[in-house]
Amino acid sequence: MEQGFVDTLISPEGKLEVLSKAEVVKLLDSGKGGLYNMFRNCALAVLNCGSTIDDGKELLERYKSFEINIIQRERGIKLEIKGAPAIAFVDGKMIKGIHEHLFAVLRDIVFVSNEVTDNPKFDLASTEGITDAVFHILRNANILRPQLSPNLVVCWGGHSINRAEYNYSKEVGYQLGLRGLDICTGCGPGAMKGPMKGATIGHAKQRFGNGRYLGITEPGIIAAESPNPIVNDLVIMPDIEKRLEAFVRTGHGIIVFPGGAGTAEEILYILGILLHPDNAAIPFPLIFTGPESSRDYFVQINEFIGTTLGPEAQQRYKIIVDDPEAVAREMQEGIKQVREFRKGRSDAYYFNWALKIDHEFQRPFAPTHENMRNLKLHKNQPVHLLAANLRRAFSGVVAGNVKDDGIRAIEQHGHFEIHGDLAIMEPMDALLASFVAQSRMKLPGKAYTPCYRVVKS
Amino acid sequence: MEQGFVDTLISPEGKLEVLSKAEVVKLLDSGKGGLYNMFRNCALAVLNCGSTIDDGKELLERYKSFEINIIQRERGIKLEIKGAPAIAFVDGKMIKGIHEHLFAVLRDIVFVSNEVTDNPKFDLASTEGITDAVFHILRNANILRPQLSPNLVVCWGGHSINRAEYNYSKEVGYQLGLRGLDICTGCGPGAMKGPMKGATIGHAKQRFGNGRYLGITEPGIIAAESPNPIVNDLVIMPDIEKRLEAFVRTGHGIIVFPGGAGTAEEILYILGILLHPDNAAIPFPLIFTGPESSRDYFVQINEFIGTTLGPEAQQRYKIIVDDPEAVAREMQEGIKQVREFRKGRSDAYYFNWALKIDHEFQRPFAPTHENMRNLKLHKNQPVHLLAANLRRAFSGVVAGNVKDDGIRAIEQHGHFEIHGDLAIMEPMDALLASFVAQSRMKLPGKAYTPCYRVVKS
Amino acid sequence: MEQGFVDTLISPEGKLEVLSKAEVVKLLDSGKGGLYNMFRNCALAVLNCGSTIDDGKELLERYKSFEINIIQRERGIKLEIKGAPAIAFVDGKMIKGIHEHLFAVLRDIVFVSNEVTDNPKFDLASTEGITDAVFHILRNANILRPQLSPNLVVCWGGHSINRAEYNYSKEVGYQLGLRGLDICTGCGPGAMKGPMKGATIGHAKQRFGNGRYLGITEPGIIAAESPNPIVNDLVIMPDIEKRLEAFVRTGHGIIVFPGGAGTAEEILYILGILLHPDNAAIPFPLIFTGPESSRDYFVQINEFIGTTLGPEAQQRYKIIVDDPEAVAREMQEGIKQVREFRKGRSDAYYFNWALKIDHEFQRPFAPTHENMRNLKLHKNQPVHLLAANLRRAFSGVVAGNVKDDGIRAIEQHGHFEIHGDLAIMEPMDALLASFVAQSRMKLPGKAYTPCYRVVKS
Amino acid sequence: MEQGFVDTLISPEGKLEVLSKAEVVKLLDSGKGGLYNMFRNCALAVLNCGSTIDDGKELLERYKSFEINIIQRERGIKLEIKGAPAIAFVDGKMIKGIHEHLFAVLRDIVFVSNEVTDNPKFDLASTEGITDAVFHILRNANILRPQLSPNLVVCWGGHSINRAEYNYSKEVGYQLGLRGLDICTGCGPGAMKGPMKGATIGHAKQRFGNGRYLGITEPGIIAAESPNPIVNDLVIMPDIEKRLEAFVRTGHGIIVFPGGAGTAEEILYILGILLHPDNAAIPFPLIFTGPESSRDYFVQINEFIGTTLGPEAQQRYKIIVDDPEAVAREMQEGIKQVREFRKGRSDAYYFNWALKIDHEFQRPFAPTHENMRNLKLHKNQPVHLLAANLRRAFSGVVAGNVKDDGIRAIEQHGHFEIHGDLAIMEPMDALLASFVAQSRMKLPGKAYTPCYRVVKS
Repeated sequence: MEQGFVDTLISPEGKLEVLSKAEVVKLLDSGKGGLYNMFRNCALAVLNCGSTIDDGKELLERYKSFEINIIQRERGIKLEIKGAPAIAFVDGKMIKGIHEHLFAVLRDIVFVSNEVTDNPKFDLASTEGITDAVFHILRNANILRPQLSPNLVVCWGGHSINRAEYNYSKEVGYQLGLRGLDICTGCGPGAMKGPMKGATIGHAKQRFGNGRYLGITEPGIIAAESPNPIVNDLVIMPDIEKRLEAFVRTGHGIIVFPGGAGTAEEILYILGILLHPDNAAIPFPLIFTGPESSRDYFVQINEFIGTTLGPEAQQRYKIIVDDPEAVAREMQEGIKQVREFRKGRSDAYYFNWALKIDHEFQRPFAPTHENMRNLKLHKNQPVHLLAANLRRAFSGVVAGNVKDDGIRAIEQHGHFEIHGDLAIMEPMDALLASFVAQSRMKLPGKAYTPCYRVVKS
Repeated sequence: MEQGFVDTLISPEGKLEVLSKAEVVKLLDSGKGGLYNMFRNCALAVLNCGSTIDDGKELLERYKSFEINIIQRERGIKLEIKGAPAIAFVDGKMIKGIHEHLFAVLRDIVFVSNEVTDNPKFDLASTEGITDAVFHILRNANILRPQLSPNLVVCWGGHSINRAEYNYSKEVGYQLGLRGLDICTGCGPGAMKGPMKGATIGHAKQRFGNGRYLGITEPGIIAAESPNPIVNDLVIMPDIEKRLEAFVRTGHGIIVFPGGAGTAEEILYILGILLHPDNAAIPFPLIFTGPESSRDYFVQINEFIGTTLGPEAQQRYKIIVDDPEAVAREMQEGIKQVREFRKGRSDAYYFNWALKIDHEFQRPFAPTHENMRNLKLHKNQPVHLLAANLRRAFSGVVAGNVKDDGIRAIEQHGHFEIHGDLAIMEPMDALLASFVAQSRMKLPGKAYTPCYRVVKS
Repeated sequence: MEQGFVDTLISPEGKLEVLSKAEVVKLLDSGKGGLYNMFRNCALAVLNCGSTIDDGKELLERYKSFEINIIQRERGIKLEIKGAPAIAFVDGKMIKGIHEHLFAVLRDIVFVSNEVTDNPKFDLASTEGITDAVFHILRNANILRPQLSPNLVVCWGGHSINRAEYNYSKEVGYQLGLRGLDICTGCGPGAMKGPMKGATIGHAKQRFGNGRYLGITEPGIIAAESPNPIVNDLVIMPDIEKRLEAFVRTGHGIIVFPGGAGTAEEILYILGILLHPDNAAIPFPLIFTGPESSRDYFVQINEFIGTTLGPEAQQRYKIIVDDPEAVAREMQEGIKQVREFRKGRSDAYYFNWALKIDHEFQRPFAPTHENMRNLKLHKNQPVHLLAANLRRAFSGVVAGNVKDDGIRAIEQHGHFEIHGDLAIMEPMDALLASFVAQSRMKLPGKAYTPCYRVVKS
Repeated sequence: MEQGFVDTLISPEGKLEVLSKAEVVKLLDSGKGGLYNMFRNCALAVLNCGSTIDDGKELLERYKSFEINIIQRERGIKLEIKGAPAIAFVDGKMIKGIHEHLFAVLRDIVFVSNEVTDNPKFDLASTEGITDAVFHILRNANILRPQLSPNLVVCWGGHSINRAEYNYSKEVGYQLGLRGLDICTGCGPGAMKGPMKGATIGHAKQRFGNGRYLGITEPGIIAAESPNPIVNDLVIMPDIEKRLEAFVRTGHGIIVFPGGAGTAEEILYILGILLHPDNAAIPFPLIFTGPESSRDYFVQINEFIGTTLGPEAQQRYKIIVDDPEAVAREMQEGIKQVREFRKGRSDAYYFNWALKIDHEFQRPFAPTHENMRNLKLHKNQPVHLLAANLRRAFSGVVAGNVKDDGIRAIEQHGHFEIHGDLAIMEPMDALLASFVAQSRMKLPGKAYTPCYRVVKS
C-alpha cells in the first residue's frame, strides 16, 4: 500500500479557497522567487501521513515524480495531483482530513509570502515585528478564536515512542477530552498523535462536536512529522522559532511526554522563556508526564535541568508519573489560573501577548556546522540565555536527524561538533546517549547514526 | 471511583423533552400500571456505564438507594437524581453522552407505554401489528432518517471478549468509519463498543461530523450492557424480540464478532429470517469476522450452523479472518447492492419493510423453566422454525446469565433444562462448553456457573 | 394566473416525514373512517394561498378535479399532485413555504386521527382530556419549544381589512420584530399576514435567523384563510375550540387588530377566559390597536364589551390607537410579567397550563340552525358563561360566512336566527351591522349577504 | 427620536474581530497616517441609518461630539461609543444589523490601509494592480463565495425616489427573491433599500435562510447613503471607482431603477465597459425598469444614451416598464447565460475576471473645479472613452450634492462648470434639469440648489 502512487483532482471543501491570478502564478513558479518547490514539498509531506518515513530527504527521493498543479474553475481552484503516496487514500479517495491539510498548506504558503515576508509592514528584525508576524499568520489561519475560553493544551513529546508511552498519551488525551480541553501538537505520530486520538473519544462522549485538534508545523519538519488527519486546524509557520512562539502564545498550558532531541529543544525553549525575569508572575501550567515505565526518563530530564539551569527552573514544572486523571485535573486547574490572570488584566485569551520572548529565542537559527560549533554553552550568562543556546544545540540535532537540509549537510560535512563547558557537556552527552539507547531519535526499525559529536572542554 | 454515589439535577440538552402533566404522573407512579420502576432501573443501568458489573441483579442491589425524580420547570422538566453511580461523572459533572441517554430512556418509556402498549391501534398479536409498533417506536426516537443513504452496519458480538478481539473490532470499526459507514450495536462493552471507538477515529479523519453510533437495547439487558457514551442515538425497545427486529429492519448489513450465547442467539435470529423462502432474493450482507486468534471460534460456529441448519444457511454469510480492510470493503459492496435493490423497488432505505419476519421470531419468549424445557429442538420442522427454537434456547441462557429476572429464576428453581434431538443437542452442548471455556459468558474476573443443562434424548 | 392548474410531484424537505404502511392506507382511503377527503381539502386550501377566494365552498367547487396522492420512495414518501392552483407556483415550481405546509397538513391529520381521536388515552369529554389532546397535537407539531423565552405574540384581526389597517398591522409587526418578538396568527390574509411581513423585516435587521411565524388553523377555516407562506410553523387543530385553546396556551400575549365576526369571536373567547375567577391573578397582556382611521371601531367594540360583559371585562385589555412602538413596548413589558409569573411558579413557558378554561369554551359547538336558535344570550348567568355563549353566536356567523358546511346549511335552511335579551341583542345587532357596513365580513369585491338574523325578545 | 444621543459599549457578534496591538494603535491615531478620522466618520454614517440626512457635511456637523474608541478585552476588542445617533437603537439597544456594520467598517479600514495601500505588492498605478486590490478587499470581506451559483443581482437607482417607484422596487425585489436571487446595492435608502425589503419577503416564503443582501459603499458616500440594516454583507471600498468595479465584478446582472446623477454615473460606467471591444462577447444582463409612472424617465435616459453613445449602446440593455415578474424572469434567464458562459471557460462565478475595464474607468477621479472644467466631453474619441468622461461629469455632480468634500468645495468656489460639445451638453443639461424637476437629486423635504453649470460650446 505504502508503495503505490495515485493521481487525482480535488476541490476545496468546507473552508473554500479563492486565489487571485497573481497568487496562482507565484505558486506555480518554480524559479527563484516562486513558491512552487516549498508548496510541492509540504503537500507531499501532508500526503505521506501515516507512513513510516520520518526522513525528509528519503521522502523527497522516493516521490521524485510527485507533482501538484492548480487549476482554475468556475467555483474556484482545484488541485491536480500526480504521483501521490497511496497511503493518503481510502479506496482511491483522499482522506478528507488530508484533503483539508493540503488547502491549509496552500493558504499559509501564499499568505506568508505575500502578506508577511514581502510586506514592509513587518519588521522581522525586531521582537515586536516577529511577534506581529506570528499573530498575523495565526489570525489568517483562523486559529485565534476570541469566543473560546482558555482550553488549549499543547502536548509535546517524541514522534518515536514505545507502545506503553503511546497508550499512556492516549489515556491523558482522553482525560483532557472528557474535561472539554482541546489539543495542540506538532502534528506528527507518537506523542503528537496519541493525545488527539484519546481526546477524540473523550470529546465524543461529551458531545463536543467542535473539539479542536490544532497542529503547528513548519516546512522543515513537516516531512518527518506529517500531520495526522485528526488535526482539524493546521498551520504552517515559516520556521521552527516562529512555530515555537506560536505554541506558547496560543496554548494555555503544556504537557510534555517522553521524547528525544526535539522534545529537549521544546523543554529548553519554554523554560528559557519562563525563566525570563519579566515572566516571573505569569501563570503557565507545565507538566511532564509518562507511564510508570518512563519514570527514569523524567528523573534524567529533571537532573539535566537542575544541573544546567538550576533549581529555579525546576519550580516551573510538575512531574506526574502514571496518573492521567491527575494530569488532566492539574492542567484544568492551571488553565483556570491562566483565565483569571488574563481576565484580571483584560489580556486576550487567544494570544498570550504578555509573555516576554527574548529576541534570542526568536531569531531563526540555521544549524550549519559553523553555527553549531560556535554555540555558547557555558554558565557565564543569564540562565535564560544559556537555555536559548542549549535549545539551539538540540535544534541542530533534530535537523541533522530528520530535516532534508540537515541530513544533506551531515552527509557532506560529517558530524556537527558541539563544544562547551564540561559541566554542561557531560550531562548533555549523557542525555543524548540515553535518547539513542531508548530509540527516541528515529522511528523504530532503523539503526540510528548520530549526527553530532559532543566535545567537552 | 466505582463505589461512590452522586446526587445531581440535570436538564435536557440538545433534543429537549416536553412532558404533559399526565405523563409525569404516570412516570412517577411506582404502583401497578405506573412506570416508575422500569424508568428507575433503566436510568440506573445507563448511569452505570463503564462499570464492570454485567449482572442486572447485582446492579440493582448495589444501588438500592438510587432514586430519580422529575421536576417541572419553566423551561421543561429536570431530572433529580440521588445515589447515582459515581462512574457516570467527571469531576462531579455527568458525562454528556450519559446525560442524553437518560432522556432517551425517558422518551422511550413514555412513548411505548402511552402510544403503543395502551393504544388499540396496534394489534400486538399480529405480525403486522408488531412490525408497526417497532416502526413507531423507532420513528418516535428519530432513528428513521429518510435523507440518509444506506450506510448503517450492525455489529454483533460478545460483551466479554479478549483484548486481541477487542482491538480487532476497533480496527474494523476504523475501516468502516473511513468509508463513511455508521455503526449500530446492542450498546454494551466489548464487541459493541470497539467498532464505535474505531469508527469515531475514522469519522474524525474523514470529517464526518454527523457519524451515527446507534444503540438498540431493551429494559431486560440494559443493566448488563450499559450503553457506552459514544452511542449518540439510543432506543430502548420493549423486549428482545422487538430489539432484534429493530436491528434487522434498520441496519443495512451485519458484522458478527466473536461472542457467547447472546451472539449465538443473534446469529440464529438473522439466519432464521434469511432462510425464510420469502426472503431468498433479498440482499443482506452478513460477515463473521475476528482476528487470527479467533479463527477456531468461527470454525466451530460454521460447523454448528452446517450441522443444525444445513449448508444452505452457510451460503448467507461470509467468514473473513484477520482482515479489517477486506471486511469494510465487502460490507460496502454488500450495502451497495442493498441500495440498488431498494431503489429498484422504491423500498425505503430507512426501514426494511420487505423482509419477512415469521411470527415465531416476533412472539416474545419468556424464558421460564417450563418454556425452556418444552422447546422443540428437532429436525422435523422447516429449517427457519428450527432456527427460531434454537434462538429461544440461547436467549434463555442469556437471561439466566445476566438478566435480573433470569438470575432470580435460576436461584429459585435451579438450572434450565434444554431437551432435544441428539443431533442438535451434541453440537449445542459443545458450543456452549466452548463459550464457557473461552470466558465468553461473563465479563472477566468472575467464575462462570452455568445456568443451563443440556439434556440429550 | 389564478385560473391555471398545475400537476407536480414533491418530496418532503427540511423536516422529513416517514409514514408507516398503515398510515398511508388510511390517508388514501376516501371511504368512511378514511382520511382522504379531509387531507385533500386542507391540501387544496394550502395551495390556494394568495388567492382572493375566501369561501370554502367556492374553492372546492372551482378545483373539483384536484387530486393528491402519496407515493412511497426509497427516501420516504412523495406527494403526487394533480390540478393544483397555479398561484402556489413560481415559474412552475411550488413555493417552498407552501410545500412545507402540505407536509404539516399531512402530519397533523395523521397524528390527530391515529394518536388522539382513536386513542382511548384521551378522554375528550373532560376538560383535562381536551387540554391534554391540545398539548399532544402541539408537541407533535414541534410547536412547544422549552428552550425559548416567552416571546410569542398572538395577532388577531380580520382577514378583510383596508389598506391603512393592513399597513398599520405591518408596522406593528415590524416593531415587534425589532424587539425579538415572534408572531402567531390564524394564518390567513389581512391582519394575519401584515404582522408577519413586518416582523420578517424587523427580524432581518436584528439578525434573528430563527424568527417564528406560527399559524394555527383548523380544517373548517383553512380554505377561507389559507396560510401565507411566511408561516414557518403551521399546525392544524381539529376544531375551532381547540384552535382557540392552542392560541391562548402557547401565546404569551395577544394583540387584536380590527376585524369582523371572527375577531369578535376571538375577543369574547379570551375575555370569557380571563374573567373566570380562577384566572384573576394570571398576567395576560391583551392590546386592541389600529390606525387613527379605526379609532371608532374600537370605541364600538369597547362599548359592546362594557354593555354586555361589564366594566370588569374592560380592565383586562388596553386600547392603543396609532402608535406601533407603544404597542410593541407595552407587549414586551406585559410578556416580561408573564415570564416572571411563570418563573416564580416553575410554570412552563411553552404551554400555559395554569390558565383555567371552562368546559363551556372547550366543547365543540356545531353551528346548526337549532343550536344557533337555542343559544342562551341573557344576563342571568355568570359573565364568563355569557361570554361563552356570545362567542358561539359569532362563531356561527363565521361558519355561515366562509366555511363550506356553514354556507351549505344556510343555502338549504335560510338565515340563522339569534335570539336573546334586548339588552344584548341590540348592541350585537349594531356591531354586526357595522361589520357589514365596513366590509369586514368578506374579502373586498363581493357583496355580503348576511347569514343571520338577530331576533330581539 | 432622531435628535437623541446614546453612549454604549458593544462586542463583536458573529464574525468576531481580532486585532493586533499595532492595528489598534493605528486605528486610534488621529494624526497624519492614522486612521481614526476615517473610521469615526464611517462609523457615524453607519449609525445614522434610517435618518433623513443625506448630506455628509450636515451629518458630521450635527454629531460633532461623536466618539468611538477600541477597548481590548480577554475575548477580543469592544467598541466604546459616545454621542451616537439614537436612531440606531431600539429601546436603548443597538440594532444588530447596524452593530455588524460597525465591525465591517473596522475590518475594511484596517485591511485596506495595512494590506493594500501600504503594501508594495499592489501596483495601484496599473490596471492589473487595481483589479487585484479590488479582489483582495472583497476576499478579505468574505464577499467571494465560490460555492454559490451565480445569483447576485445588482440593483442601482436613486436614493430619493417617489413612493410608487419605491413600492415598485420592492415588488421587483420580491419577485427576484422568490426566484432565489440575491441582491446587491449601494446600500442607502430608496432604490437601494426597496429591492432588499422585497427580496427578504420572497426569501422567507422560499425558506432561503441564507439570502444575501450585499452593500458596497465607500467612505465618501456612506454618510449620504447609510447602509440599511437588512444589508448582511457590507464592504467599504476605498473610492467610487473601486466601488463601481466591485459591483460589476461580483454581480451577475444589473437592474437600474429610476434615479438621479448617481444613477446616471452608474449607467455610463457599465455601458462604457460593455462597449469596450474586448467585452463584446461577454453576456451581462442589464435591465432598466420602473412603474408605469416612470415610463417617461426611461424614454429620456434611452434618448440620452442614443444621442451621446449611439444605438450600439442601446443594444446592451433592455427596458421593461411596470412588470416585476418579467424583470425577474428576464434577469434569471440572463444569469443562466452568464453561468453557461463562465462554466464553458472555467471562469470564476464569484469574480468576473474576464471583463476588461479600461484604465480610464479605474483611475480615481477627484472632482475638483479644475478637473470638472477640463473633462473631454466631445465625440472625437472612442465611444467607451466618451462614456468614461461623461461618467466623471455625473460623478462630480454627486460629490457636489452629497459628499462632505464636494459640498465644502462648492461652498468655497461656487458651481462646477461642465464644458463640452453642444451635441452632448444639450441632452446632458436636459437630463440634469429633469432630475432636479423630479426631485431626484436629494431626499424630499429640501429645496435643491444645483452644484453645477453646464457650459455649451
